[in-house]
Amino acid sequence: MPGPDPAVAATRLAVRDHLGDLEPGSLVLSACSGGPDSTALAAALAFEASRAGMRAGAVVVDHRLQEGSGAVAQEAASLCRDMGLDPVEVVEATVPTTGAGLEADARSARFAAITATADRLGAALVMLGHTRDDQAEQVLLGLSRGSGARSLSGMPVRRDRFVRPLLSLPRATTLAACAAYGIDPWDDPHNRDESFRRVRARRLLASLESELGPGFAAALARSADLLREDADHLETLAVEARASLPDADGHPGVDLDALAALPRAIRTRVWRLLAAEAGAPLADVSAAHVESLDALLTSWHGQGPLHVPGGIAVARERRAIRFRPLRDAATA
Amino acid sequence: MPGPDPAVAATRLAVRDHLGDLEPGSLVLSACSGGPDSTALAAALAFEASRAGMRAGAVVVDHRLQEGSGAVAQEAASLCRDMGLDPVEVVEATVPTTGAGLEADARSARFAAITATADRLGAALVMLGHTRDDQAEQVLLGLSRGSGARSLSGMPVRRDRFVRPLLSLPRATTLAACAAYGIDPWDDPHNRDESFRRVRARRLLASLESELGPGFAAALARSADLLREDADHLETLAVEARASLPDADGHPGVDLDALAALPRAIRTRVWRLLAAEAGAPLADVSAAHVESLDALLTSWHGQGPLHVPGGIAVARERRAIRFRPLRDAATA
Repeated sequence: MPGPDPAVAATRLAVRDHLGDLEPGSLVLSACSGGPDSTALAAALAFEASRAGMRAGAVVVDHRLQEGSGAVAQEAASLCRDMGLDPVEVVEATVPTTGAGLEADARSARFAAITATADRLGAALVMLGHTRDDQAEQVLLGLSRGSGARSLSGMPVRRDRFVRPLLSLPRATTLAACAAYGIDPWDDPHNRDESFRRVRARRLLASLESELGPGFAAALARSADLLREDADHLETLAVEARASLPDADGHPGVDLDALAALPRAIRTRVWRLLAAEAGAPLADVSAAHVESLDALLTSWHGQGPLHVPGGIAVARERRAIRFRPLRDAATA
Repeated sequence: MPGPDPAVAATRLAVRDHLGDLEPGSLVLSACSGGPDSTALAAALAFEASRAGMRAGAVVVDHRLQEGSGAVAQEAASLCRDMGLDPVEVVEATVPTTGAGLEADARSARFAAITATADRLGAALVMLGHTRDDQAEQVLLGLSRGSGARSLSGMPVRRDRFVRPLLSLPRATTLAACAAYGIDPWDDPHNRDESFRRVRARRLLASLESELGPGFAAALARSADLLREDADHLETLAVEARASLPDADGHPGVDLDALAALPRAIRTRVWRLLAAEAGAPLADVSAAHVESLDALLTSWHGQGPLHVPGGIAVARERRAIRFRPLRDAATA
């Protein structure tokens, strides 16, 4: 008897690796859009979960961003039911307009809808269909922001209940798996809309792959893994360094010399921790902000208080660095 | 009186920043190819060195790889003499064929020729004309290898006697500076030869810049700076971790449990240090080698000795990890 198609086998193996630690009978949800990646994932989960004694379901998010999105969602749900997944839920997500861009807003709304569904159904694990190509796109977009190891480390395989079993597999594998199942997955027209940066990143990756690769996307994903390990460790060290940073002698704020004595790789991260303690939203604190904060130590020429996002003023006062709300700083 | 052209001023300021720590009368050499970057550098050095009380010279390397390379070198040297640089030397470099590729071989030969000339002339500093665009190309090529922070950290501003004053400036600035001087710099036909990966990388960067940027090249260079700080610190920590790694109890080799207890970001670097101690040429030890070494700890299933470059066998023996020459391992 021939084994399953190699692409199907690869997706199943990838899913199986994440089922081992669960209690028997646990519910595992897969998030499914009807596209090739999440369809291959749902099919692999349906197969592996029953063998492992788990329950497997699916959640399909209808973003209501495109004409006919309801029908696409219902079709994806019906496909999941045909695979034997149960429960299968279609949930509507209301995409807010926060100014972060449509892609980011849709992602936040999707994440919130999936989390709420997972909570309601009591899912032990939620599987997401991101592939190595998605990871490479993520890293390339991170590179365009010029930020450090954390931004370049892409998506983690696992965070809390969320797991991305296919993150080491190329998109070609999910496409091949769908073909082997005889499924014609949904082709999201947004994936061809060049007004999205991610779509342009995908096309550029194909050029990089053909001109500097082959293997460029895989290489980006490998770099991301190494940089994630670096970021994890350096952030742990920065938290320790922050905890042992003394207050300034007789003046509010942290001690200037102790801060200046930290190695740069730690100090840049301690600056971020200090900003977060003062109430700055970390996502808005850029490498450029950190650079100007660090200049309070490394190229001091009497500069006035700096502003970081969240309405915070940072000033060097005698031998201290002091963070406080802009309002207070103005009246101090 | 109007000041100098802004591009000329920017290159001069960049050069000036590196002259401060030298003894008066020191000789500073600039490596000049006759191309726009090194020509703008040589001109800035000629101006700044005399104001700072230094001697400024140039070294022009003739790689003899292209028809007429001798004439190009003589013309670059004559331009440098016109700028007032003295001494100006043309040295021939014999490019070996090592299998590392023409670009790498030419770079090694150039570096050796410049070093020998700097030694002979007693230069205190050697300036190289790399710009931010070169840095971005370097990082992009590093990304195509899928390696860690060190490979992605590009070229340092300073290492030993070598300094790259223009590393924060875009190539557009050196081109504008040459135009302001009325110099028509040499246009190396190799820079349009798409058989070189670096030339393809340059063209791809222009696409990335226009489609994900503007500022993509600058962002790559900024990431490189942050990753270099990370790599510096993590390598320091790895050297400390290696030094305190105990020998295995009653068996040759390092203690397995102590190694396994290190955080991954440190452990991957300690593996490299152990391989180097055993005689492996570090440039040949890839992330994939390190990954299979680490599997001796993290997914042990009785695998036999692994081979790392330099003819070294690495084996897990009881509670120890042991590195030794392949010959010895075969007869052990």
